[in-house]
Amino acid sequence: MNLRVVLTPGELRPGEVAGACVFVIDILRATTTMCAALHHGAKAIIPVTGIDEAREVAARFEGEGEGEGERPMLAGERGADPVPGFDLGNSPGEMTAAAVAGRLLVMTTTNGTRALRAVAQAASVHPLAAVNFSAAVQRARSVRQDGGRVVVVCAGMVGQPSREDAYCAGRFGRDVVGSAGGAGLSDQTRWCLDLAEEFGDDWYAALMASTAGRKLSEHGYAEDVRVAG
Amino acid sequence: MNLRVVLTPGELRPGEVAGACVFVIDILRATTTMCAALHHGAKAIIPVTGIDEAREVAARFEGEGEGEGERPMLAGERGADPVPGFDLGNSPGEMTAAAVAGRLLVMTTTNGTRALRAVAQAASVHPLAAVNFSAAVQRARSVRQDGGRVVVVCAGMVGQPSREDAYCAGRFGRDVVGSAGGAGLSDQTRWCLDLAEEFGDDWYAALMASTAGRKLSEHGYAEDVRVAG
Repeated sequence: MNLRVVLTPGELRPGEVAGACVFVIDILRATTTMCAALHHGAKAIIPVTGIDEAREVAARFEGEGEGEGERPMLAGERGADPVPGFDLGNSPGEMTAAAVAGRLLVMTTTNGTRALRAVAQAASVHPLAAVNFSAAVQRARSVRQDGGRVVVVCAGMVGQPSREDAYCAGRFGRDVVGSAGGAGLSDQTRWCLDLAEEFGDDWYAALMASTAGRKLSEHGYAEDVRVAG
Repeated sequence: MNLRVVLTPGELRPGEVAGACVFVIDILRATTTMCAALHHGAKAIIPVTGIDEAREVAARFEGEGEGEGERPMLAGERGADPVPGFDLGNSPGEMTAAAVAGRLLVMTTTNGTRALRAVAQAASVHPLAAVNFSAAVQRARSVRQDGGRVVVVCAGMVGQPSREDAYCAGRFGRDVVGSAGGAGLSDQTRWCLDLAEEFGDDWYAALMASTAGRKLSEHGYAEDVRVAG
């Protein structure tokens, strides 16, 4: 499969995303939540690493817009739960049009926003999840047809590869490239494709078979797993 | 599976190997080669990261032994091939009794010796490969029965998880713990166990299905893959 897949941001080689079209996967839940926010009219999302940094960045944009509606909103989680004092957590269900339309979001999550920050040198960066899967596949195909490079970066979980992101990467790679074959597959890409084969088109089964899916469900966020799949 | 498996040294949490009994896997080929050297009478192996460091460490031990036979030997590889000027490469077949019996080896390889250096805080460190598998399983069981902690650290390939090491870790975990079950399995451990199930007891098939196995075979080291499996 002639497509580079990286299982954690730590595995990125220096400079390898420069000039590339990058798809970042943290399907449970950051990239699913981001897609929901953008779909419901959020103007933009600024990913930041820390909570203090989120407040600083939001303050920098304070008053730059026209009226109260332009104030940046703080969104994110720590340990899956919303950050005290923030406007929004990291649940796709929170990202309604009433909440986010026309607003700028400053967002920090444990894994997803770190991955987004790690690819800041890319030519373009897209969140990837089930909810925007077909559109993302089309975009990646089009970039490749125009001679561009596509890199898929999984967020993983606290620096370690995670199954739900790898499954999404495997499906994505298969659909973008149009074939799951190739003798030169890396061991990581092979894992992704094996997972895509194991769970087929069943997003929900794949998500529930992951550590993140299990933990979110136990922690009161079962609906988020359902929405993500 | 109540046993910690780490797919690359970069995934180690700070301090987590301190006081633990650690098994390091770089089955193609560093830990297989180390087992061969120790089996054929090498006195000890000092893993170092760089080529210059290897020469410095060897010079430090020069003349400390009794006679010429006590001079440290330099061993290792870069890009799979022996390092120019070194006494030995990284092939298990080179580690004959005639070459290494009674000798101290200073060794540097691309992945394996880095993994060994990353676990220097462990209570004890063992190379793990197919060639010492049964003895290693017994040792790990005994440590756990005495209340000790066992951590398995895969070397991976240039900072990325590798299939042949993960397969070895999966077989090891299954045999040490005595069961492959458990709802709380991490996604990485599950990958290892899936590989152990996929390839069963067929070391050679698992090794040849990995990037490292394929590359070594293409690069003139097919016999090393056979010996390792």
